[in-house]
Amino acid sequence: MADLELTHRRKNPLSGDWVLVSPHRNNRPWLGATEANNHTEAPAFDAQCPLCPGNQRANDAINPQYQGTFVFTNDFGALNSAQQSVEHDATHPLLMAETASGECRVICFSEQHNLTLPELPIEAIEQVVDTWQQHYQTLAAQYQCVHIFENKGSVMGCSQPHPHGQIWAHDHLSSEIAVEDAKQHAYFAKHGRTMLADYVEHETNTRTRVVFENSHWLVVVPYWAAWPFETLVVAKDDVRHFGQMSQAQKSALAEAIKVLTTKYDNLFNCSFPYSMGWHNAPSQTNTDDSHWRLHGHFYPPLLRSATVKKHMVGYEMLAESQRDITAETAAALLQQASDIHYKQGRR
Amino acid sequence: MADLELTHRRKNPLSGDWVLVSPHRNNRPWLGATEANNHTEAPAFDAQCPLCPGNQRANDAINPQYQGTFVFTNDFGALNSAQQSVEHDATHPLLMAETASGECRVICFSEQHNLTLPELPIEAIEQVVDTWQQHYQTLAAQYQCVHIFENKGSVMGCSQPHPHGQIWAHDHLSSEIAVEDAKQHAYFAKHGRTMLADYVEHETNTRTRVVFENSHWLVVVPYWAAWPFETLVVAKDDVRHFGQMSQAQKSALAEAIKVLTTKYDNLFNCSFPYSMGWHNAPSQTNTDDSHWRLHGHFYPPLLRSATVKKHMVGYEMLAESQRDITAETAAALLQQASDIHYKQGRR
Ligand SMILES: O=P(O)(O)O[C@H]1O[C@H](CO)[C@@H](O)[C@H](O)[C@H]1O
Ligand SMILES: O=P(O)(O)O[C@H]1O[C@H](CO)[C@@H](O)[C@H](O)[C@H]1O
Repeated sequence: MADLELTHRRKNPLSGDWVLVSPHRNNRPWLGATEANNHTEAPAFDAQCPLCPGNQRANDAINPQYQGTFVFTNDFGALNSAQQSVEHDATHPLLMAETASGECRVICFSEQHNLTLPELPIEAIEQVVDTWQQHYQTLAAQYQCVHIFENKGSVMGCSQPHPHGQIWAHDHLSSEIAVEDAKQHAYFAKHGRTMLADYVEHETNTRTRVVFENSHWLVVVPYWAAWPFETLVVAKDDVRHFGQMSQAQKSALAEAIKVLTTKYDNLFNCSFPYSMGWHNAPSQTNTDDSHWRLHGHFYPPLLRSATVKKHMVGYEMLAESQRDITAETAAALLQQASDIHYKQGRR
Repeated sequence: MADLELTHRRKNPLSGDWVLVSPHRNNRPWLGATEANNHTEAPAFDAQCPLCPGNQRANDAINPQYQGTFVFTNDFGALNSAQQSVEHDATHPLLMAETASGECRVICFSEQHNLTLPELPIEAIEQVVDTWQQHYQTLAAQYQCVHIFENKGSVMGCSQPHPHGQIWAHDHLSSEIAVEDAKQHAYFAKHGRTMLADYVEHETNTRTRVVFENSHWLVVVPYWAAWPFETLVVAKDDVRHFGQMSQAQKSALAEAIKVLTTKYDNLFNCSFPYSMGWHNAPSQTNTDDSHWRLHGHFYPPLLRSATVKKHMVGYEMLAESQRDITAETAAALLQQASDIHYKQGRR
C-alpha cells in the first residue's frame, strides 16, 4: 500500500477473513459506553472465591491447599465425556447437526487470588506452561482438538477474577482449527513451505510489527490484526503442538508471555483484558502436519484507554471486522511500552 | 437429533459456521460481569445530542428541524468516496491488501430522542423502511455492497441513544456477503431451489421456531442461531434486495419489525440491545441472483436477564460459537412474550 493512512482492507491468510482498516476514524469523538476500570486491590485470598485453595466449589468439592497451578474438571462444562450417542435426525438438508463430546477443565494459574500472568514470577509462568503441556498430552491422546485459552477481565466474560484459564477438548475439529488447517495446508501445497515459518522470516527481517522476540518465539502484531492490539505468538522452530515443546522452548514461551502481558498492562496502566489461546495441529489424525506451526492469538478489546474498547458489532457482525489504528501504529505503541510492570515497586 | 438437551453442534448453511449447543450449561451460577440496566427516562429532546433536530454536530453542521427520518453522511465514516487510488505493494504473498472506497451514512429513525423502534407507531417504522429503500436504491446504483444496520444499546457499542441506524456502502463485497452468496449459489446449483425459500417452507410447516409471520415475512429463531435470542427475518416472496420491495412488502416488514422488537423488549422488560442488519444480493453484478433471498439478522447479546449477556469470547473467538439454551427454547420464550410493549399505558 502506498499510504497506510488511507482506507484499505487486509486479508488474514490463516482464516481467510478480511479486515477493513480506517485509520482516520480514530479521530472521532467517543460518546458511547465506557468500561469500569476497577483499581481496588483484591486480597491474596478470598473466602468467597471458588478457585482459592481450601474453598468449596458449586458442586460441593473442596479445593486442595494448592501452591502454583491447580486443575479440575469444569463443574458446568460445555462438553461432557459421558455423552450418550444420539442419532442425527436428517429431516431436512438445511438442518445439519452432529453430536459433540469432550471435556472442559479449569486451570488455576496461582494460589494467589489477586495476581495475573504478568505479575507472576517467571518460574510461576513456566509452571503454567508445563501444566498446559501435561494436560495437552493427556487430552490429545484422546481427542482430535484441544483448546487451551484464557479469558482475562470481566469485559471478556471472565466470571472469576482469580487467575485461571480453561481447556476444552473434543472429538471434532472446531471451525477455526478446520479453517486454519485448510489454509496452512493449501499454502504448503503451493509454496512447499510452512506458512507461519515464512511469516516469521518476513517479520523478523522487516521488524515494523515485531513486539518481542527471543530464540524460540516471535510476538508480532500481525499485518491482518482485527482487534486494536491483537498479537500473534509464533514458534520460531518447527513445533506443531504443545506436546513437542522442549524445556528451552517452554521457558522461552514463559518469557514471551511475561513480556507481552506486561507491555499490555503498561499500555493504559490497567489490568489489560483479553482472550488468548493456543492453536495446536489437530491430533488423532494420521495425516502429515508439516504445514502446521504452533501459535497463540491474543485478542484484547481495548482501543484508546483503560475504559474505551473497540466494539465488534453491527458492521463487524454483518459484514466484516473493522479497525481504526493500523497494525503498525499498534505495534509501535507496544514496542514503546515498558517491559517492567507499572505496579512493580508499588507492592 | 434424538435428544436436543444433549451437547451437539449445528451448522449454519448461510455462513458455513458451526455452533456448539450445550443446553445443560445454562444451569451454572453466574458470578461474572452484569450490564447496566438504565431505567432513567431520557427527554424527548436533548440539547447535547448531535442527532436531535436543530442541534450542531461535531463537524459544525446544523441538523434541520426534521420530523420522522433524517439522513446525513457520517462525519467520521469508516469509508470515504473521495478515495485516492493507491497501489498494492505486493512485497510478500502473506501481506495481502486492497484499497476500499465507499460511503457511510447515519439514518435517524425519529426526531424524538427517547423512542426506539418498538415504541414508534407503525407509520413511523414504515417511513424508516421507505428511507432504507430510497438510500439503498441510490447507493446500489453506485456500489456493489450496501449494508443497512442498527446497533442498539450501549452494550452493542452504540455511541448515541438517539434512535438511529447506519448505511455503509462500498465497491467490494464484504466477507459475510461473499460467503452467503457462495453458499446460496451452491445450494441453488445443487437443488435447483432458493435456499431460504426452502427454509421458509420448512419452518412454516413445522412452526417450532417461528416467532412471527405475516403474508410477506417470516421471523424465526434459526435452527443454527449462535446468539441466545438471534432471529432471522426472511422475505417469503422472491425478493432479492431492498430495491425490489413493493408497498405491501414494506408495510409488512414494518409490522414484523414492530412485533419482533416489542417481543424482545418484553422478554426481560428492558430496552433489548442488539445489532441487526439486512443482507441484500450484491448489486452492480451482471450475474443472475435467483439464488439470493433478502433477509435480516438480529443478533441480541442478552441471555438470562436485562443484565446478564452471553460473552462470545475465548472459546468462541478461538474455536467456534457456543450457546447455552437451544434455539427451540429461545423461540418458545419469544412466542410467549407479548406483542404489546411493556411500557404501553405507562406513557
Ligand atoms: O459508528 P458508531 O455507532 O459510533 O460505532 C459503532 O458501530 C460501528 C459499526 O458497527 C463499529 O465499527 C464501532 O466499533 C461501534 O462502536
Ligand atoms: O466459562 P466461563 O469463564 O464462566 O465463561 C466464559 O468463557 C466461555 C468460554 O469462552 C464462554 O462460553 C462464556 O460465554 C464466557 O462467559
